[in-house]
Amino acid sequence: MPVISHRGAQMPPSPIRKLVPYADAAKKRGTKVYHLNIGQPDIETPPSILDAVRHTHMTVLEYSPSAGFDSYRKKLTEYYKRNNIDVTPAQIIVTTGGSEAIMFAIMSCLDAGDEIIIPEPFYANYNGYATGAGVKVVPIPSSIDSGFALPAIEVFEKAVTTRTKAIMICNPNNPTGYLYSAAELDVLRDICLKHDLFLFSDEAYREFCYDGAKHISALSLEGMENHAILLDTISKRYSACGGRIGAFVSRNTHVMDAAMKFAQARLSPPTFAQILGEAAVDLPLDYFDKVHAEYTSRRDLLVSRLKAMKGVKCPLPGGAFYAMAQLPVADSEKFCQWLLEGFSHNGATVMMAPAAGFYATPGKGKNEVRLAYVLNREDINAAMDCLEAALGEYKG
Amino acid sequence: MPVISHRGAQMPPSPIRKLVPYADAAKKRGTKVYHLNIGQPDIETPPSILDAVRHTHMTVLEYSPSAGFDSYRKKLTEYYKRNNIDVTPAQIIVTTGGSEAIMFAIMSCLDAGDEIIIPEPFYANYNGYATGAGVKVVPIPSSIDSGFALPAIEVFEKAVTTRTKAIMICNPNNPTGYLYSAAELDVLRDICLKHDLFLFSDEAYREFCYDGAKHISALSLEGMENHAILLDTISKRYSACGGRIGAFVSRNTHVMDAAMKFAQARLSPPTFAQILGEAAVDLPLDYFDKVHAEYTSRRDLLVSRLKAMKGVKCPLPGGAFYAMAQLPVADSEKFCQWLLEGFSHNGATVMMAPAAGFYATPGKGKNEVRLAYVLNREDINAAMDCLEAALGEYKG
Repeated sequence: MPVISHRGAQMPPSPIRKLVPYADAAKKRGTKVYHLNIGQPDIETPPSILDAVRHTHMTVLEYSPSAGFDSYRKKLTEYYKRNNIDVTPAQIIVTTGGSEAIMFAIMSCLDAGDEIIIPEPFYANYNGYATGAGVKVVPIPSSIDSGFALPAIEVFEKAVTTRTKAIMICNPNNPTGYLYSAAELDVLRDICLKHDLFLFSDEAYREFCYDGAKHISALSLEGMENHAILLDTISKRYSACGGRIGAFVSRNTHVMDAAMKFAQARLSPPTFAQILGEAAVDLPLDYFDKVHAEYTSRRDLLVSRLKAMKGVKCPLPGGAFYAMAQLPVADSEKFCQWLLEGFSHNGATVMMAPAAGFYATPGKGKNEVRLAYVLNREDINAAMDCLEAALGEYKG
Repeated sequence: MPVISHRGAQMPPSPIRKLVPYADAAKKRGTKVYHLNIGQPDIETPPSILDAVRHTHMTVLEYSPSAGFDSYRKKLTEYYKRNNIDVTPAQIIVTTGGSEAIMFAIMSCLDAGDEIIIPEPFYANYNGYATGAGVKVVPIPSSIDSGFALPAIEVFEKAVTTRTKAIMICNPNNPTGYLYSAAELDVLRDICLKHDLFLFSDEAYREFCYDGAKHISALSLEGMENHAILLDTISKRYSACGGRIGAFVSRNTHVMDAAMKFAQARLSPPTFAQILGEAAVDLPLDYFDKVHAEYTSRRDLLVSRLKAMKGVKCPLPGGAFYAMAQLPVADSEKFCQWLLEGFSHNGATVMMAPAAGFYATPGKGKNEVRLAYVLNREDINAAMDCLEAALGEYKG
């Protein structure tokens, strides 16, 4: 039998999907499962943007241009301008989800054997794409004890080697919910300029910043015109995860030329969801107000419930819709599996993402979980009832 | 300034999109351009499958499962059964276009430095994905003089090295239109089994076989359960290129496990076009009859017009909707550019794909072009009038 590739063997399985079979089995037994494990919001996709797809008059479902429809790229510049990001359509490639933007960045900027510095814990799929590309992820620690703030500049300096080509951040952060400060972004800029590194900035959660904090894009950092690459997606912004539309944005023409060749190889991003994405730019400007208020109240509820549990630690996340919690258990993966296999409370249980999968350093995050507050307050309350009861009962 | 990756620099630009700026300029001057350069059919997407998307009742555009909707995978097994391919839903991963299926195959089965044997000329994006993955393409010659039949088995044997992991074919072939015979597929099977190689079979054009010939899938070859990987797409089948839905199909569980991890990294294939693809399986079985008749008449017209031109050679393609033609010019890329820059006939010109971009061997195919017969007969006739006049006028 022919054997698969080493990269296929080494590719990490998705930490958020590993427990899915146990959840399926729980549902088969009639147990309700509250899904706090995955960033799939229950927020309605704005009906007007779904209608834009429903009302298309096309007769042939054609390829779009490899960079995306010109009309959409032009429209996106309006969206970015409203967010203090001045870009031209030529500086935007529409991608198949934020995932493809991540891949274009890694493939265009790093070769096999090169290194990318990423503060951990980090979005697990960064590791997947790096592994596929033969790129080494060098983690920089951030810790629940300091609320997942970036470490001091010296820690970055120590991590830079001759093979380092880029630093990657997610801001606000998945999985921690941490929102980087202007001072932290200045630190990142200084390191990137000093060592000539790319800064990949995943800003999928740009609109989800709380307590009056303002989001700062990597593309607004002075002097970073050739260094900053913005990775974006409409998935969370408009609750449109299934559309698979994102964007790769940079002012570096060499990077854009390289990314464009990867874009041409896959021909084009999906047509239908580009229509949806274009309509989304024209949503009333107050669209996010309601969504924002909803997520704020969910966050406040979730964190206050967690903090009230004995032995549980949970810093208040400043953005995105995730919280990391430290639990009084030795192995959160075993605990999460037990929640699905061996526990129920009022006929229900809760599914969370064990945090170890978000760390590159073996052994880290073993007593942490990531919770996505993508359910309504009533469900979050019920899920927290389950978790509280489970922690009381768990012997593991 | 940070520098892009070597793979980003080495990535070949798309040979079919290189001349697009010249075509755009021609259109700006008011010249009509007949597009025979790209496999974008003018055939109507079946209205009923577009309606399936228009009539969706979703309120949240959610992620689908990473392998695609269960209902769609199940439905696809019906489609494959009708085509003498017995597979289960677990042997299918729904992909973002055929492009992603190609990528999953290369990434799951080959490492950087490994070799893949591909009969040339071949679909240019195979080279793009191989380059991105650090995989070496080893071309095996097929020639216009023998109608692009596969070379003798000895030629394959000579190309196999210790790094060879796979053979890749497109059947029926893009760009040549060649349909592989049962005998040729048996040769491929014997080599794959002897040297334990994967066989990647791109069957995007399965339905487009002419003159009563039957298509044979790599998945129907005996003894190849662990070796054959089918790469598929709905793009050409239902004129649904913009949907970006394909499939990766194999009975090798190790390969499926590896591909599944790459599938999880990009979360899910696009939701809307999966709905369209699922509806397509239920199209009346005679749907292809009309499409098939249309392409047959286009092929016959195109080839007879080409053969009537002095110095032009064009073997009759047995499948797909492409023809390769040898022209009485020294450099078909220059000629194609001149057609767009310096020529018009009755206010129109024709755009073709220079064939050199489909060959891996430098210098090959320099006097050949690929023509996609994706326009109606009237337009094909007008395009051939242009080509005939141009060949008479061209001094290059």
